[in-house]
Amino acid sequence: MKKTKINVGMVGLGRIGKMHVRNICQTLPLFNLKTIADPAPDIGFTQNLEDVAISDNINSVLSDNKIEAVVVCSPTPTHYDIIKKCIARKKHVFCEKPVSFLEDEIKELITIKDRENMFIQVGLNRRFDQDFLMAKKKMDSGALGDIHAIHITNHDASIPPFKFLKSSGGMLFDLCIHDFDMLSFLTGQKVKEIYVNGGVFIDKRLQDIGDVDNAIITLELENGILCSIDSSRQTHYGYDQRIELFGSKGMVLVENKKDNLYSLSDSNQTQASKINHSFVERYRDSYLNQLEHFYSSIISNTSPSVGLENILSAIQVAEAGRQSMLTKRPQGVKYE
Amino acid sequence: MKKTKINVGMVGLGRIGKMHVRNICQTLPLFNLKTIADPAPDIGFTQNLEDVAISDNINSVLSDNKIEAVVVCSPTPTHYDIIKKCIARKKHVFCEKPVSFLEDEIKELITIKDRENMFIQVGLNRRFDQDFLMAKKKMDSGALGDIHAIHITNHDASIPPFKFLKSSGGMLFDLCIHDFDMLSFLTGQKVKEIYVNGGVFIDKRLQDIGDVDNAIITLELENGILCSIDSSRQTHYGYDQRIELFGSKGMVLVENKKDNLYSLSDSNQTQASKINHSFVERYRDSYLNQLEHFYSSIISNTSPSVGLENILSAIQVAEAGRQSMLTKRPQGVKYE
Amino acid sequence: MKKTKINVGMVGLGRIGKMHVRNICQTLPLFNLKTIADPAPDIGFTQNLEDVAISDNINSVLSDNKIEAVVVCSPTPTHYDIIKKCIARKKHVFCEKPVSFLEDEIKELITIKDRENMFIQVGLNRRFDQDFLMAKKKMDSGALGDIHAIHITNHDASIPPFKFLKSSGGMLFDLCIHDFDMLSFLTGQKVKEIYVNGGVFIDKRLQDIGDVDNAIITLELENGILCSIDSSRQTHYGYDQRIELFGSKGMVLVENKKDNLYSLSDSNQTQASKINHSFVERYRDSYLNQLEHFYSSIISNTSPSVGLENILSAIQVAEAGRQSMLTKRPQGVKYE
Amino acid sequence: MKKTKINVGMVGLGRIGKMHVRNICQTLPLFNLKTIADPAPDIGFTQNLEDVAISDNINSVLSDNKIEAVVVCSPTPTHYDIIKKCIARKKHVFCEKPVSFLEDEIKELITIKDRENMFIQVGLNRRFDQDFLMAKKKMDSGALGDIHAIHITNHDASIPPFKFLKSSGGMLFDLCIHDFDMLSFLTGQKVKEIYVNGGVFIDKRLQDIGDVDNAIITLELENGILCSIDSSRQTHYGYDQRIELFGSKGMVLVENKKDNLYSLSDSNQTQASKINHSFVERYRDSYLNQLEHFYSSIISNTSPSVGLENILSAIQVAEAGRQSMLTKRPQGVKYE
Repeated sequence: MKKTKINVGMVGLGRIGKMHVRNICQTLPLFNLKTIADPAPDIGFTQNLEDVAISDNINSVLSDNKIEAVVVCSPTPTHYDIIKKCIARKKHVFCEKPVSFLEDEIKELITIKDRENMFIQVGLNRRFDQDFLMAKKKMDSGALGDIHAIHITNHDASIPPFKFLKSSGGMLFDLCIHDFDMLSFLTGQKVKEIYVNGGVFIDKRLQDIGDVDNAIITLELENGILCSIDSSRQTHYGYDQRIELFGSKGMVLVENKKDNLYSLSDSNQTQASKINHSFVERYRDSYLNQLEHFYSSIISNTSPSVGLENILSAIQVAEAGRQSMLTKRPQGVKYE
Repeated sequence: MKKTKINVGMVGLGRIGKMHVRNICQTLPLFNLKTIADPAPDIGFTQNLEDVAISDNINSVLSDNKIEAVVVCSPTPTHYDIIKKCIARKKHVFCEKPVSFLEDEIKELITIKDRENMFIQVGLNRRFDQDFLMAKKKMDSGALGDIHAIHITNHDASIPPFKFLKSSGGMLFDLCIHDFDMLSFLTGQKVKEIYVNGGVFIDKRLQDIGDVDNAIITLELENGILCSIDSSRQTHYGYDQRIELFGSKGMVLVENKKDNLYSLSDSNQTQASKINHSFVERYRDSYLNQLEHFYSSIISNTSPSVGLENILSAIQVAEAGRQSMLTKRPQGVKYE
Repeated sequence: MKKTKINVGMVGLGRIGKMHVRNICQTLPLFNLKTIADPAPDIGFTQNLEDVAISDNINSVLSDNKIEAVVVCSPTPTHYDIIKKCIARKKHVFCEKPVSFLEDEIKELITIKDRENMFIQVGLNRRFDQDFLMAKKKMDSGALGDIHAIHITNHDASIPPFKFLKSSGGMLFDLCIHDFDMLSFLTGQKVKEIYVNGGVFIDKRLQDIGDVDNAIITLELENGILCSIDSSRQTHYGYDQRIELFGSKGMVLVENKKDNLYSLSDSNQTQASKINHSFVERYRDSYLNQLEHFYSSIISNTSPSVGLENILSAIQVAEAGRQSMLTKRPQGVKYE
Repeated sequence: MKKTKINVGMVGLGRIGKMHVRNICQTLPLFNLKTIADPAPDIGFTQNLEDVAISDNINSVLSDNKIEAVVVCSPTPTHYDIIKKCIARKKHVFCEKPVSFLEDEIKELITIKDRENMFIQVGLNRRFDQDFLMAKKKMDSGALGDIHAIHITNHDASIPPFKFLKSSGGMLFDLCIHDFDMLSFLTGQKVKEIYVNGGVFIDKRLQDIGDVDNAIITLELENGILCSIDSSRQTHYGYDQRIELFGSKGMVLVENKKDNLYSLSDSNQTQASKINHSFVERYRDSYLNQLEHFYSSIISNTSPSVGLENILSAIQVAEAGRQSMLTKRPQGVKYE
């Protein structure tokens, strides 16, 4: 337990930012959170923090030489600029997905971090989920034989506010980006082709901005594996996060996590617990695991296992998906 | 239990035909099986039947005026001709799906049976499965709100012999035809558009005949509901038959049926029963229910709830799916 | 399927009797049901039977030389006399449990049937349940190591009418008798000691006749295995029939059978199907299997695998259990 | 998050002690762990602790006026003396169960803590498990009607070393004590009578010290509710912790927690994750919750919800259970 602490700064104190703060302060003594920068920090939240400086200016973080690493949770459009500044100040970065909606920005950041020899870990939290890792382990063991098909269910319980949706980059870039990455993570393959059939069922305003709230996505990987993704912004019954892997010898299935182990049976039915409501509960351990990985990477001076290259590929799939919705036909993914 | 018996004839004594014979002789005393016609009847099977005439000539069935109804289980290409002859002899017909691969043949049969005022029930057995019926009932009750998306898993445990596959009409016409019908059955909607991404993973010879053994299918219904089908000819772990209905208020999920209720836990794992291996076990009751429905329809002189019109629609979806595989893009379904 | 039919008579047409009649007429063409004898047969039921003679006098069954076997479903107190008469007429007997509440009667019947070389199978239906058989098979395979403990849950959904309860012999003789037999069936061991703690929670009139409607029963087998039974006459949520086997290497658990495979998840909960409501659904196949076994035993002239010796042991355990309730302490079981 | 920290000392650094240390240092910043006293502290463990004094003398804890509260995890026979000293120094105590095997010692401690106005919370961790709390909530809501029966399964995965078993007070005092308390916690009722049938299946040396490693326990509560406990020191397949509550309207069942959400189906079986292996995983949150409750009780100066009175009752049940094993009959529990 006695380990070198790493001083970190936090940029952005929204929903995800607060979760990371709670995790760091309560459960990750590996990090010492020195400063939080947010243009309008939630005082009700920050007043309970001990020994953490609160600032409305990102420079408080950037100019502090004792801060070795920065956790970036501000809105996506700000990431590119913030990361560049952090790297320039020789601070490692943990940045929430999808980093940027523009491939060129990500490519430039890759060049910079390689040149400066700095680490940029991206918050693709599902790669750190023990259940998906077990699925991958079983698959890698050969127990499924050759993989033929993969099915992912990715449903949010509650649609975010329209204000957020407008700047989210759209459902493919914001929500399904996890699934695009997961397919590559599980199989080690890139996506060759994508077809998206989306619809607006929940918030009609999405039609005006060319976005959808439900999508059925078909993908083909480079080695021919067939994939499908069922995705929705809102299904009320909880945060539906399932994976099915079908191979020549068998199937692996990852179920949802329930809030509670009870069931109640009466003369009408059997009633059981809801599944976890949101990423906060479902990926609680994954969020901790990925920050621990960030810590270990810095301490051992080895590249994090998930970075800009991964999010770049996922963004390229999302972009092809966006084209597919416009052209209403399958699109090859361009990696260049 | 004391009910008017209906004399039936059986045409075709393959795998499905034998199952129907067993069902009729052992569990459906409503029918009196008089004659079985098959070009090369399996004597090992027929010698155990009591009071059933066995013939290698279909005329033994057609010319018997006491036979009121015929169960047709011969290969699909023979159905059109056999049904016409049955109707001409004023015999009601229960015919296995998909009746024909040609829309025109089905349309002609519709005209004939309407003109002759006869019944033709089609073996879309899943419509009689109590679990799918319960899913439909819950959906129809409004408990799910508006339906946004439907996901169907339809995997066979073992790929049929190549000889059968060649004459099966292909995976879409033979296997997925059930799913196309199920979507309409559940929602009361027609399929507007279909996109099929298929692959050959199991029997490479399928490539030579333009067929596939795995397919991810995206469909859009006329009212906009998004659907996906995961289908495979062989996944070894059993006959995977699941349905997921997603609505604005919640979800209904139909799980697989297991062979056995036991589980065994030891220091390594928890082991449980396989799911049902084939349609024989999974749809055991559905097969009985549909023949009972056929009986009731004849006795009460009311049209069966599922007939040529339903299989026609499903065939039209399959045909658009076939086009989609050729053009590698989504295809609208043509109903005319 | 072509097999020698055995002519049977039925004595007693109550709830169980009707179920056997339905099974024989609809699903067991091995038997030809010739005659039903009941002092007041339910005409609404019998009028639908074809080719079955209905009589209010058991002699119609006994005097019919074509009847080779008799299924006895009359009230327990009549069994002893009826069985003796059947054996005297050289008719094999299938008799519902518990045959008699008096050990001496059962012993006398054993002597008679051995002398006359006739078969008497007893309706301990759970021995023919595929799920319990699988549990036994796993246990016998050594997968659990040495067995330490067994737990049985045996709950009825709805308490029978008080009139029936009064003549049922009490909860131990009527309901738990199945569990006493199951313990011996599974392990091949006799019960050495029993302690019953019972209570009246549902029908207070049971107190007046010294019976209970709930019981927690502790048993020790001759080889030291520890057993517990949770039993209730009424728990509303269904027919709770579970078994747990604990060994030095692991555990086998047999779950309940659900009516339906669906689940419905909404913002409040996940709702699933009830478990089977009664023995009719839960042991549907077991009831058929045991009559098929009766048929095979007669045809092959081999003793049925379950008979008077088994019910005698179970009755002796029940009798010790009755003593235990009176003395409020554990009682050794007397086998003599 | 900014809250007054409470300085605590820890006495005893065995398996449970280390778990509490990890919890406090990693996840419970409410407490500041100042000093650990253990006669032979594990240096491999303690060297990783930051800012924690390690001592082989309990006086380091007792004499430190800044330490407000003490967590006692030393062997049970030392608890009585340590608690008295802590109270004398005006330190609140959190003590692991069962505090003492002697009722008189516990009674004396009750007198002392009441006189000194200090808090003594007892580590009955299951009262803080969210799943059991949900079961209680459902029961208290009336959804089950009147409770008739309760069944508890309490199996350890691996039997502790014989050295520990010898000083553990025996299976009833060490393991089943949790269940005795749980029955009272759930129902608000005291146990009226207990019957224990135990056996030695795993470690034969237990016979020499009058202990058992498997037990089937029947209990009757004061209001007549019937209870059974299946308990084992070792069943290899995991830490089996289930509760079933049966009432006049329905049942609540609490299942085990699995390590992982995956399942793997192949042509032989469906394989799923093991259940949690030990209390460390199964009651991870409960251990945190109970220490948070201890913190809140001290801060708000209100008695903890679980204390010596509760463990006293449980000890009295265990003592009657011990008598029952000796006399081989049910024993009334003496509360005086």
